[in-house]
Amino acid sequence: MSTHPLDPIFHPRSVAVIGVPSTRRRGFGGFYESLREAGFPEIGQLYPVNPKVDEIDGVRCYPSLLEVPDPVDYVISQVPAPAAPQLVDQCIAKKVRAIHFFTAGFSETGDEHLAQVEREMMAKLKAAGIRAIGPNCMGLYVPASRLAFMEGFSMEPGNVLLLSQSGANAGEIVSELSGRGVRFSKVISYGNAADLQAHDFLDYAASDPETDVVAAYVEGVKDGRAFFEALKRCARVKRTIILKGGLSASGSRAAHSHTGSLAGSAAVFDAVCRQAGAIRAETMDELQDLVVAASTNTYRVKGRGVALIGGGGGGFAVLSSDAIDREGLTVPRMPASAVQQMREFIPVAGSSVNNPIDAMPPEDRVDDMLQIVATAEGIDMVFMGPMLGRPGRPQASDQDGAPDAEEVAKAMEEKTKKAAQQLRTLQDETGTPVVGIFRGGRMARRMGMESEGFFEAAYREGIGVFPSVARAARTVARVLEWRQYREGMPDIL
Amino acid sequence: MSTHPLDPIFHPRSVAVIGVPSTRRRGFGGFYESLREAGFPEIGQLYPVNPKVDEIDGVRCYPSLLEVPDPVDYVISQVPAPAAPQLVDQCIAKKVRAIHFFTAGFSETGDEHLAQVEREMMAKLKAAGIRAIGPNCMGLYVPASRLAFMEGFSMEPGNVLLLSQSGANAGEIVSELSGRGVRFSKVISYGNAADLQAHDFLDYAASDPETDVVAAYVEGVKDGRAFFEALKRCARVKRTIILKGGLSASGSRAAHSHTGSLAGSAAVFDAVCRQAGAIRAETMDELQDLVVAASTNTYRVKGRGVALIGGGGGGFAVLSSDAIDREGLTVPRMPASAVQQMREFIPVAGSSVNNPIDAMPPEDRVDDMLQIVATAEGIDMVFMGPMLGRPGRPQASDQDGAPDAEEVAKAMEEKTKKAAQQLRTLQDETGTPVVGIFRGGRMARRMGMESEGFFEAAYREGIGVFPSVARAARTVARVLEWRQYREGMPDIL
Repeated sequence: MSTHPLDPIFHPRSVAVIGVPSTRRRGFGGFYESLREAGFPEIGQLYPVNPKVDEIDGVRCYPSLLEVPDPVDYVISQVPAPAAPQLVDQCIAKKVRAIHFFTAGFSETGDEHLAQVEREMMAKLKAAGIRAIGPNCMGLYVPASRLAFMEGFSMEPGNVLLLSQSGANAGEIVSELSGRGVRFSKVISYGNAADLQAHDFLDYAASDPETDVVAAYVEGVKDGRAFFEALKRCARVKRTIILKGGLSASGSRAAHSHTGSLAGSAAVFDAVCRQAGAIRAETMDELQDLVVAASTNTYRVKGRGVALIGGGGGGFAVLSSDAIDREGLTVPRMPASAVQQMREFIPVAGSSVNNPIDAMPPEDRVDDMLQIVATAEGIDMVFMGPMLGRPGRPQASDQDGAPDAEEVAKAMEEKTKKAAQQLRTLQDETGTPVVGIFRGGRMARRMGMESEGFFEAAYREGIGVFPSVARAARTVARVLEWRQYREGMPDIL
Repeated sequence: MSTHPLDPIFHPRSVAVIGVPSTRRRGFGGFYESLREAGFPEIGQLYPVNPKVDEIDGVRCYPSLLEVPDPVDYVISQVPAPAAPQLVDQCIAKKVRAIHFFTAGFSETGDEHLAQVEREMMAKLKAAGIRAIGPNCMGLYVPASRLAFMEGFSMEPGNVLLLSQSGANAGEIVSELSGRGVRFSKVISYGNAADLQAHDFLDYAASDPETDVVAAYVEGVKDGRAFFEALKRCARVKRTIILKGGLSASGSRAAHSHTGSLAGSAAVFDAVCRQAGAIRAETMDELQDLVVAASTNTYRVKGRGVALIGGGGGGFAVLSSDAIDREGLTVPRMPASAVQQMREFIPVAGSSVNNPIDAMPPEDRVDDMLQIVATAEGIDMVFMGPMLGRPGRPQASDQDGAPDAEEVAKAMEEKTKKAAQQLRTLQDETGTPVVGIFRGGRMARRMGMESEGFFEAAYREGIGVFPSVARAARTVARVLEWRQYREGMPDIL
């Protein structure tokens, strides 16, 4: 397989940050700090550029890109907008491969003169064979290349490629999904898309061997035909999820002033996604849930019958059942034979074995119960949390005397991992997909449960975990819908 | 106003816990510990009863209720089900006023014999003039009387009365809403409702001077007519929100095995609520959001035009606008005159003043901007978070050197309070309801923002805060619907 022409952009050997702030910067705009933290200098060369500063953190700071003594592959521009055209000239002279403009203040302002400046810069770069990301965006996060645009991002590579026209949304998606265990192959925040656009990145994603799942936040598409063709190429071979912002009247106005994007209708966009075989997420939460589903066993669910196990009391089971029905799934009665089998070791009082399952069998019969439930007729998936075996509840706090904090944390981690493995084992042994539920919230915290640990541990076992039964049910319903309209397309679900 | 006959039950002078566990118990079943923590012994007498134990935490433990030397108003039963009938006899002999059965294992099991035991106990109690709460429930949480059924509950009284057929749901609602600033007048978990039922508590709530807002989680109603009449009485004079569990086929089955409740249809229940002037919450989240709305200025919103201010970048504004439109509200364009006024002190580049508002004016003009936006034509409410003035971001962490943790916490609390007051001031000075948005999540935490502080601080200023724009918009849309079908009824919205 030949390498995609865009591939080298994601693997620069050297990076220069132009206009790097002279004081430490966290969050948006802290590119130099983020690259340092990501460990980029260890595998490449990182050059801070700022004419007003001699050194940053003991590292020599160059007065201009042209003064950097070595070749530079990739430039991050955080100079003010009026200085950008000059930087473009320097990039051409320096023969860089690509430039990412964090710099904003061009076409997105709606000002015709500034839009003209943007067009002129792009024309010059194009003539020189230099590709541009942005302007008005956060650029790249590529763990394998030790590129990051914010501090705290994991350097462990994964199989999800994210493209986002909005830097804030990219940051939020990365941050939230990382806490649920998801890891990324490439993340691209591409803003105004003056040169490289959604269709370029979708085309790249289609052929990227490091990517299995593609998630996209798109506001506007300049070339509808090219977008549709690239989306089709990508969605044929990768599980592809798209959230389109600005599909409402109010949202469309907001998108126009954000990235200069023009509106589209929800119905049209929906049809485009269906034809391409991609799935359209309707909200930010749904995008995240679908990424979790698409990168775990959740996407393998094939029917509508849910076995709901445990999770917190009768009233919870009632509302959960309502939520499952609301999404077109069902919580079917257990067959009489399964009930009878379970009644051999589960007493009648204070327990329900007739789905929702709310029972606490003797420790050595828990696995038997799970097996009976997961293999019962009419059950296509099991919804369950980490309650069985109480992984997150430190037993020590039930006794008098304060337990050692470190010991409790270690015991909890151990139990969390065990609970996650229990779900995986159940899934492997029965062939029934297990969908994890972890509600978190103040009650869980008060009971000593730490949610992120379970999300991550289960994800590593291939089990998707969702923060509520309603969201899990909604996600599964969307996956079933997706499966339906993909009929006849390559089997990636 | 004469006192309601049920009122003394909520204000017992002495409480006996029967079958109190001999070891410390947290969470469900830890009634004695919870009452101790709530400070009940300071304003009343608290008697642990357990024949197997001489003392608990240095306090004398009595072998039976009859051995308690003083009168007992209120009994909490955590004896096993088979011991309950004998306890009933003792309660009659002791002339207690009311008994709460945490004890489960009666009609909810579906076992006819156990249901018969429940009926016989109730008949005996009724003949003796003793009221019963439960069985199979958590009982009472009444801050003013220092009654609590779990540890960690606030002892600050509020104006929300909650009744819940499910103890787990009661615990979750109290826990989550407390974190959002809500405080309660009375909380009643009433389980099987063998004696006191939803309609009794609604009737009480209607006349309770300490209650302005009534929230209810109901699974089944034994006497539909009595329920409807009590609901009408209550909803006429108090803002009343009801979540009915078990309205779907799966949920109805679950409810039957939880509290022995029978199903109803969503359409019928919806019609009942509308006729009574109550609002039906469709999910647990919605119940909580509506309680926040009903006990803050959010319920005063009268139109559909939203000014959306700040909150986190362009992509966020786009998706938020979409979410607002989806609920039937709008994000109208600012009138040209308002735009012109703002442009006098807000530059064009990198800012939007045309709603969504994404601009950072000079510190001394922030209030001017807010006033212009809140009083603009077409604006019925302002959605905004605590971003302006960056209340939650400790400035110190931007500098080198670790700041003093206590100092940072104090500064953050101060800023949070100031941000909350800013919303209140804006609301007071413009007469436009301000709806708070605080998304929390990992990004907010990484930026040093602590969500609960802002939720609580704003609530104390009468400002409802919601964890997403989507939930805020949904809540306002439901309130507007409620307002509409209450036309002609007493003005409580």
